[in-house]
Amino acid sequence: METIVGENQLKIEVCYSPALFPVYFSSKNCVVVVIDIFRATSAICTAFQYGVSKIIPVASVEVAKEYKAKGYITAAERNGQIVEGFELGNSPFGYMNPDFKGKEIVLTTTNGTKAIERARAADHVIVGSFLNLDAVCRFLKKQNKNVILLCAGWRDRFNLEDSLFAGAVVSQLSQEQPFTALADSSIAAKELYNLAKSDLNQFLINSSHRNRLSRLNLEKDIEYCLQKNTVDLVPIFEGNALVI
Amino acid sequence: METIVGENQLKIEVCYSPALFPVYFSSKNCVVVVIDIFRATSAICTAFQYGVSKIIPVASVEVAKEYKAKGYITAAERNGQIVEGFELGNSPFGYMNPDFKGKEIVLTTTNGTKAIERARAADHVIVGSFLNLDAVCRFLKKQNKNVILLCAGWRDRFNLEDSLFAGAVVSQLSQEQPFTALADSSIAAKELYNLAKSDLNQFLINSSHRNRLSRLNLEKDIEYCLQKNTVDLVPIFEGNALVI
Repeated sequence: METIVGENQLKIEVCYSPALFPVYFSSKNCVVVVIDIFRATSAICTAFQYGVSKIIPVASVEVAKEYKAKGYITAAERNGQIVEGFELGNSPFGYMNPDFKGKEIVLTTTNGTKAIERARAADHVIVGSFLNLDAVCRFLKKQNKNVILLCAGWRDRFNLEDSLFAGAVVSQLSQEQPFTALADSSIAAKELYNLAKSDLNQFLINSSHRNRLSRLNLEKDIEYCLQKNTVDLVPIFEGNALVI
Repeated sequence: METIVGENQLKIEVCYSPALFPVYFSSKNCVVVVIDIFRATSAICTAFQYGVSKIIPVASVEVAKEYKAKGYITAAERNGQIVEGFELGNSPFGYMNPDFKGKEIVLTTTNGTKAIERARAADHVIVGSFLNLDAVCRFLKKQNKNVILLCAGWRDRFNLEDSLFAGAVVSQLSQEQPFTALADSSIAAKELYNLAKSDLNQFLINSSHRNRLSRLNLEKDIEYCLQKNTVDLVPIFEGNALVI
């Protein structure tokens, strides 16, 4: 254990890349929050808000195709775009569909679903986005367990918007015991969030993924994903799927 | 290549953990700056300032022992302390020894020398610390190559003081072409450095490794390692050793 914490203190650490998860993961008895702001975890929160019953994350397009062949509603995104042969990607707007109410959706994305795959080693895996920020923080306060905030990043690289969300969670949780002893990763995320919080979109103006989406004419998605607390639920991993 | 850069632009990225190095390393033709502020890279800069001719970094205590048996001056640190059986660790003060002038020193440390091992995949590997900040930046500006700022971290975890130094380098380099298109990792490091630069020690007051050294009564080392530009040289990797 690298951060010295008191007997009744809990650890909250930010893992800035799925490739680093094994470094931070030391016990199954923790809560992992998977974060992919642009756009997988924002889309997942939106899907549940609009009545989807279950989301089955899969790591590869091939597996998604197998589900599609079986008749599942299937979503696939790579490099910010919908994969050829699929109708749905990871734009949250695609999930605001009344036909999806009560349905199961299979989802694969460039970064988010791979991060979920990694996180499955833990006993408790939830999905976080700015949309459900307060709901995530309430959930974590109740659990009384160590927390790993797992940024999906971009192809295992550090990514700014996921780090800012991690900082938002640290910021709320570190205001109260037993989360006050912060790891270096959490201190950094919190400081960055404090710098950015008054205008997240402006802070991200030079960030790489924001600009990637902007080039794809997805400004509307960017603005949507940076809203706070429009969704009051916490998707949680059970069996092989996310439910609420 | 994940950051979109113009034709004549160079990439500067921060790799926050040696475990992530393979993600950031895409071509041998780049400069890797190895950073272990507390204390390996600060000690290495100090050693050369005091006249050491060569430093042979080795990853394990076992290999260091083999060199010791052959009569080399040998330094070994683990968990902030000198390894039993060695007289020298990674305190910069240990290297201010007139007897070392013109000598070769073999060095193994918890994080720094492992980061150097990783970095050896690149054509150009140099050592950075706050002590030689300006010299490092001048060197990088001359090279006209992509730059990876490799933080040694703490046992592959994100670490605050190494990130701040990376931010100091980004801050200087991003003021001029061709380094203006920054990766997310570089934006974050630069923002953190800007927050911290007026009082680095105060900013690090809750950071884990600073506190680890503080518990070992190494406040003097902390203050020393946070000084800027007291050393005007750049240790560079050649063959199996660092030289200037």
